[in-house]
Amino acid sequence: MTIKISIDCMGGDHGPSVTIPAAISFLQREPDAELILVGQEEALRAALRKYKQGDISRLHVQHAAEVVTMDDSIEVALRRKKDSSMRVAVNLVKDGQASAAVSAGNTGALMAVSRYVLKTIPGVDRPAICTILPNQKDGPTYMLDLGANVDCEPQHLHQFALMGSALVSAMEGKPRPTVGLLNVGEEEIKGNEVVKQTAELLHADHEKGLINFYGNVEGNDIFEGTTDIVVCDGFVGNVTLKASEGLGRFVKIVLTTEFKKGFFNKLGALIAYGAIKALSRRLNPSRYNGASLLGLRGLVFKSHGGADAYAFEWAIQRAYDAAKYDVLSRITTTIAELIPQAESAAERVTAITSSTDLTEQKTV
Amino acid sequence: MTIKISIDCMGGDHGPSVTIPAAISFLQREPDAELILVGQEEALRAALRKYKQGDISRLHVQHAAEVVTMDDSIEVALRRKKDSSMRVAVNLVKDGQASAAVSAGNTGALMAVSRYVLKTIPGVDRPAICTILPNQKDGPTYMLDLGANVDCEPQHLHQFALMGSALVSAMEGKPRPTVGLLNVGEEEIKGNEVVKQTAELLHADHEKGLINFYGNVEGNDIFEGTTDIVVCDGFVGNVTLKASEGLGRFVKIVLTTEFKKGFFNKLGALIAYGAIKALSRRLNPSRYNGASLLGLRGLVFKSHGGADAYAFEWAIQRAYDAAKYDVLSRITTTIAELIPQAESAAERVTAITSSTDLTEQKTV
Repeated sequence: MTIKISIDCMGGDHGPSVTIPAAISFLQREPDAELILVGQEEALRAALRKYKQGDISRLHVQHAAEVVTMDDSIEVALRRKKDSSMRVAVNLVKDGQASAAVSAGNTGALMAVSRYVLKTIPGVDRPAICTILPNQKDGPTYMLDLGANVDCEPQHLHQFALMGSALVSAMEGKPRPTVGLLNVGEEEIKGNEVVKQTAELLHADHEKGLINFYGNVEGNDIFEGTTDIVVCDGFVGNVTLKASEGLGRFVKIVLTTEFKKGFFNKLGALIAYGAIKALSRRLNPSRYNGASLLGLRGLVFKSHGGADAYAFEWAIQRAYDAAKYDVLSRITTTIAELIPQAESAAERVTAITSSTDLTEQKTV
Repeated sequence: MTIKISIDCMGGDHGPSVTIPAAISFLQREPDAELILVGQEEALRAALRKYKQGDISRLHVQHAAEVVTMDDSIEVALRRKKDSSMRVAVNLVKDGQASAAVSAGNTGALMAVSRYVLKTIPGVDRPAICTILPNQKDGPTYMLDLGANVDCEPQHLHQFALMGSALVSAMEGKPRPTVGLLNVGEEEIKGNEVVKQTAELLHADHEKGLINFYGNVEGNDIFEGTTDIVVCDGFVGNVTLKASEGLGRFVKIVLTTEFKKGFFNKLGALIAYGAIKALSRRLNPSRYNGASLLGLRGLVFKSHGGADAYAFEWAIQRAYDAAKYDVLSRITTTIAELIPQAESAAERVTAITSSTDLTEQKTV
């Protein structure tokens, strides 16, 4: 069965010079894929002529006159650029012409546009951004939210956990991925009120076999790979991710300067180059490019803005896999089963903390 | 003038085998210092005989029968071990026999004992833990809170900013150190309500010339050294710090394994060793050992539990410098000037957000 993916070809730092060769290369990898390239037609046709190789009959071009820049405010992206490549790519998902959209454009704009166009899944209050980080076990740690929600209530973190679990289960083929709740200590008495109440909700789900809740995890567990999924609010997630990126750049600078001054110049530079390359390959793997915007009635993937063609191809691959493994209906089903719409979030927290009649509450 | 520092010699992973040689070496560096070594007398005397070198007439031994272990709960440290080396070292500060205390013991216990024994400075609702992180500019980034306060209101973050500013001004000799507020973006509209209200408080102080408020900073700014001080709540600070430590360990593992397999074994190991040593020296410098417990009516410094003698000596140095530069009275004065006690924190937030009559409010 053919899977169609729409691609915002104008987004990111490099636009068509990255997105087009990535799309062409991806098609050769997946014979069942079709790609809809969205952007300024002339620019796309020119890039297609330049990078053309092999069969491109499964590539379609969809014109969109405008481009959301990396600096555009959400307001501009949402209200003023209604014919942007980003918006049109997401519209194609809404209209059922594509199974997923991929963009390397500005995250805030992509989330706002996707949320406006696609709306949230019933039972999900707020969509979340889920990214993948590498860990010592040479596997992926899925972490959410990464910045879409800076003020979270327990029911939001609870929904993130359920969505993350459904995503990882589908994408990694793990029937019961482990979920960790990011906290300042492992003990249950640790943390703020929001985290403590979230833990109660997750323990209740765990006891009913609905989720594989590991318990609290700490900052170091992200890179140790203690759990498959790490759940946190968007404030903590965003700061942690950016601090880690900052530390990564610092490591790179130290290795370069120390080795260049410590050995004969050329040998030192060579060693620094080798060390940095080895680190990048393990710490910032291209195959992990492509964050998911979860909780929407359609699949949207966000590539790093600075991704090269190889990394952007991996973002397309993630979108393709998500469509193939039916991530959307898995998340929708999970949420529908676990979070009956009629029940308000506030009632649920109260129920969990004050009642022992849990099973009845949840199966209504 | 002689400055006396009390040292919890039993704390940390190594106890007297680290703390005693560090104390002896420190005395040789600072001719005006006297140290009170607190712990089980027999163990201390034995270690003193072993490490003895040069003049140790400025070392005093103070017996304490008990030891707070790294696993002891706060309850145990506080209620059951009243004659612990940690407690006695802090008591010496309270009684005016020492100007500062240093311990490598369990952070939670040290904070609880210090808070119980010393109490908080008038105007400070909650003490905070302030640590130093290295940055790309080869200078220190002071960051607080690191975990003492997981739920913060704007007035708490405001107090952390004032205390951090007074500390850095004294310790680094910078009259107007820059203060950044950790957030998910630089723009003022970004962040949660607590952060936005804190920014208003800090902007008001800045306009009156009372603090050098830079504005919002992001996770990456910690290691870029954008500001001298980074203020955040203890939840975010703790997770960020532990995630960074976890990433640091991951980097070490990657360098070791990649180089050992990539080159002839011995050469690869040598390169990995060099790279890790260079990184450690820059990313985890011993001279930054010694976190401050700020907001107490006495100076207390926390060394890393796993510190070696060289690093522990730096923690003693920090405590000594803090006493010498009169950090305590600087913080007390700053807080007294900026946060009149009578004014409740809630009133202040309301005043700042609703009134233009700011100057009058604050000079009452």
